[in-house]
Amino acid sequence: MTATEPFRLTAAQAQAKFKDGSLTVEQYAKSLLHRVSTRDPTVHAWAYLDPDLVLEQARKLDRIPPEERGPLHGVAIGVKDVILTKDMPTQHNSPIYEDDAPRIDAASIMTLRANGALIFGKTTTTEFAATSVGPSHKGPKTANPHDPSRTPGGSSSGSGAAVGDMQVPIGLGTQTVGSTIRPGSFNGIYAMKPTWNSISREGQKLYSLIFDTLGLYARSVDDLQLLIDAFQLVDDGPEGHFAIKGAKFALVTLPTPEWPEPGPGTEAAMKKGAELLRAHGAMVEEITLPDEFRPMYKYHLQVLAGDGRVAFLPDYYQAKHHLHDSLIGHVENKDKHTRRDQLKAFDELAAMRPKMDVLADKYAAIIAPSALDEAPVGQGNTGSAAFCGPWTAMHMPVVNVPGFKGENGMPIGLSVVASRYRDQHLLRVCREVGKIFEAEGGWKRNL
Amino acid sequence: MTATEPFRLTAAQAQAKFKDGSLTVEQYAKSLLHRVSTRDPTVHAWAYLDPDLVLEQARKLDRIPPEERGPLHGVAIGVKDVILTKDMPTQHNSPIYEDDAPRIDAASIMTLRANGALIFGKTTTTEFAATSVGPSHKGPKTANPHDPSRTPGGSSSGSGAAVGDMQVPIGLGTQTVGSTIRPGSFNGIYAMKPTWNSISREGQKLYSLIFDTLGLYARSVDDLQLLIDAFQLVDDGPEGHFAIKGAKFALVTLPTPEWPEPGPGTEAAMKKGAELLRAHGAMVEEITLPDEFRPMYKYHLQVLAGDGRVAFLPDYYQAKHHLHDSLIGHVENKDKHTRRDQLKAFDELAAMRPKMDVLADKYAAIIAPSALDEAPVGQGNTGSAAFCGPWTAMHMPVVNVPGFKGENGMPIGLSVVASRYRDQHLLRVCREVGKIFEAEGGWKRNL
Repeated sequence: MTATEPFRLTAAQAQAKFKDGSLTVEQYAKSLLHRVSTRDPTVHAWAYLDPDLVLEQARKLDRIPPEERGPLHGVAIGVKDVILTKDMPTQHNSPIYEDDAPRIDAASIMTLRANGALIFGKTTTTEFAATSVGPSHKGPKTANPHDPSRTPGGSSSGSGAAVGDMQVPIGLGTQTVGSTIRPGSFNGIYAMKPTWNSISREGQKLYSLIFDTLGLYARSVDDLQLLIDAFQLVDDGPEGHFAIKGAKFALVTLPTPEWPEPGPGTEAAMKKGAELLRAHGAMVEEITLPDEFRPMYKYHLQVLAGDGRVAFLPDYYQAKHHLHDSLIGHVENKDKHTRRDQLKAFDELAAMRPKMDVLADKYAAIIAPSALDEAPVGQGNTGSAAFCGPWTAMHMPVVNVPGFKGENGMPIGLSVVASRYRDQHLLRVCREVGKIFEAEGGWKRNL
Repeated sequence: MTATEPFRLTAAQAQAKFKDGSLTVEQYAKSLLHRVSTRDPTVHAWAYLDPDLVLEQARKLDRIPPEERGPLHGVAIGVKDVILTKDMPTQHNSPIYEDDAPRIDAASIMTLRANGALIFGKTTTTEFAATSVGPSHKGPKTANPHDPSRTPGGSSSGSGAAVGDMQVPIGLGTQTVGSTIRPGSFNGIYAMKPTWNSISREGQKLYSLIFDTLGLYARSVDDLQLLIDAFQLVDDGPEGHFAIKGAKFALVTLPTPEWPEPGPGTEAAMKKGAELLRAHGAMVEEITLPDEFRPMYKYHLQVLAGDGRVAFLPDYYQAKHHLHDSLIGHVENKDKHTRRDQLKAFDELAAMRPKMDVLADKYAAIIAPSALDEAPVGQGNTGSAAFCGPWTAMHMPVVNVPGFKGENGMPIGLSVVASRYRDQHLLRVCREVGKIFEAEGGWKRNL
């Protein structure tokens, strides 16, 4: 048996090899670049990737003396192309920004670089991370690595696909409704949307101030841990080890007709997830989100319309003819939202947040669907974000935990959710839940 | 009598001359530049100003055929140096960003340029618009144009001073507590903080997502009107002409000891403002903000601490030794705010907003103090923002209307406040209130 090819390593595993001297960042980067060159002609995950720049950065990292290396030393990160990077273009999958390359790093990129990360390239996105039309606007669209006839989801399409395809261990996404969690489920990877505003969103294309959140992709909880520690996400008070045995979970379904019905794959994953947790000694209470939360999705979309009206006005002035119809609709307020309705939606969502925290705090975590079903066929539409909306609107941290599969063998994950600012607790829970779902859920990465 | 020197014109007045052909944008820009060259060695309002770039842009605007000119054609705008401009550096008054010049426009700048504005230069700011230490970190500090021994206020120090000094008709500021309104009062100009999130904050240095707002400076309500129309601020439903006679105002004082006592100048301005409105036929009801709003200032500062912790983390990683102690304190959470307290503050402020709207909607507008008193002596400290905090925390639109004077003859303005998304209504009110305060308040610009 040969040694694992470096591209297959998680970031934490690669770091162990950097530490014991059995792998350099340059060798690692070369393995990732080779993976990209063989796989990406099918997947199309990258909006920009300069191998020379990657190798130059990698060599620079190798030259840092071991005692001066940062906590993210050599961790290779694909960056959604709505996040500014000072050494690469940021194009938003919009003709308005083709080849645009401002010399500035987003706040998240500054933090990652300061911790030693290797900023690898820019990954594809739907237009401004604000439509459900699969990227790219020119050339072939991004494909699901597990079945290229299917979508990888969106709007963080490229980051989800690249991490799922082992072209890079870590990806950055964004989420305004379900743009991080949905691709997580479709690509069979861990996806984390931390508590709103717990990581600076500066330098990340704006859609909604009150919803937009940086998203994190990885193939292990250890890798997510590396990231949230670098971003200094801290809960109140220390907590000990988390054990599944004796823990209480809520298995949450969302009330219809406000939300759609889950497909058979998601329904089976929810059932199996509950069975597995129970088999390992947990209590699982099945609940439907209480009635007071029913208007949440309507409010979410209403606030989003008002926010989109503000966010896309400059682009509209710049080049209306280059904007997607839905964005023009926001700016022109085609749905005739009133300010009164917009404020009511904003205020009612705000009033729901502490109530939802109280509900969540009764459990170790809430388990909920991540997506309607496995990734649909076709790359033009990235699928429904409806199931991800509640936790985005409520500002709660969510992790998509992979492990299940749909009727066509495609990956399906479940959302594990905690109350606001319990991101560290949530990862402790997901570490244990993930062990079980990955081992016994029925889906295996086969790439 | 000679014709008015062009630099003395408001933006709307200058536009009338562009239109009738009696003034070109280039001639106008030359007059402003001349004003800068004679006055700014005393005032120090500019962090960056390139006369050649200004004239080049002005000539370009003059070449646009009249029928293709934008609504802000030739309107010269000073931009606070925490707002990104693609053709000028953005330095945040921080050594970390000295000479930093990312090639990107903030959303607000994109909109202004698309409407024909002349982006004039970058105005001084306190460090990251987040301290009360008067700019600049190197060289002389920005002075109040009406008395250079005094502060122009902050954090939008340079924009307030430059507009007050007629070096430029329009300035952009930002406000997180009182960074736009306070300099408005100190410099004797109109200052507007629109409804939160009614103008895109993208590309403006982040301090707090939930409070930061772009601010607008001008020497007339007509000029503010030009700006908010370009930014497409729209109220619900059309409203007719506003008349002072028969209108009802609230003269609001804030409960102590949560807020400080106003100084004699502000107290006199409040008294005189009420008298003048009554003399013109308005009803003025004197109220103190109800008790349920008492914790507002404490909550505001608490949320700000949590937000600062996130916003300045990247700069902290980059160069902690270059950060002001208060910002290091945010990142290191020196005051030991818990997540629980932070969420309580965030949620309670959210719950107050609809209640404050109800209170405001009983009146044509709320009249409140803008600052403790006239601008204090010394340029090192920009003064207290306490009186501006409530309306920032409540997301309400506010205009500082000038017209009064303090014991030392310095200008004092009053805040005129409306409920959220009534920005157009607020300007209609301020147009009439401003006529009275400017004519009869007792202070005259003498520069």
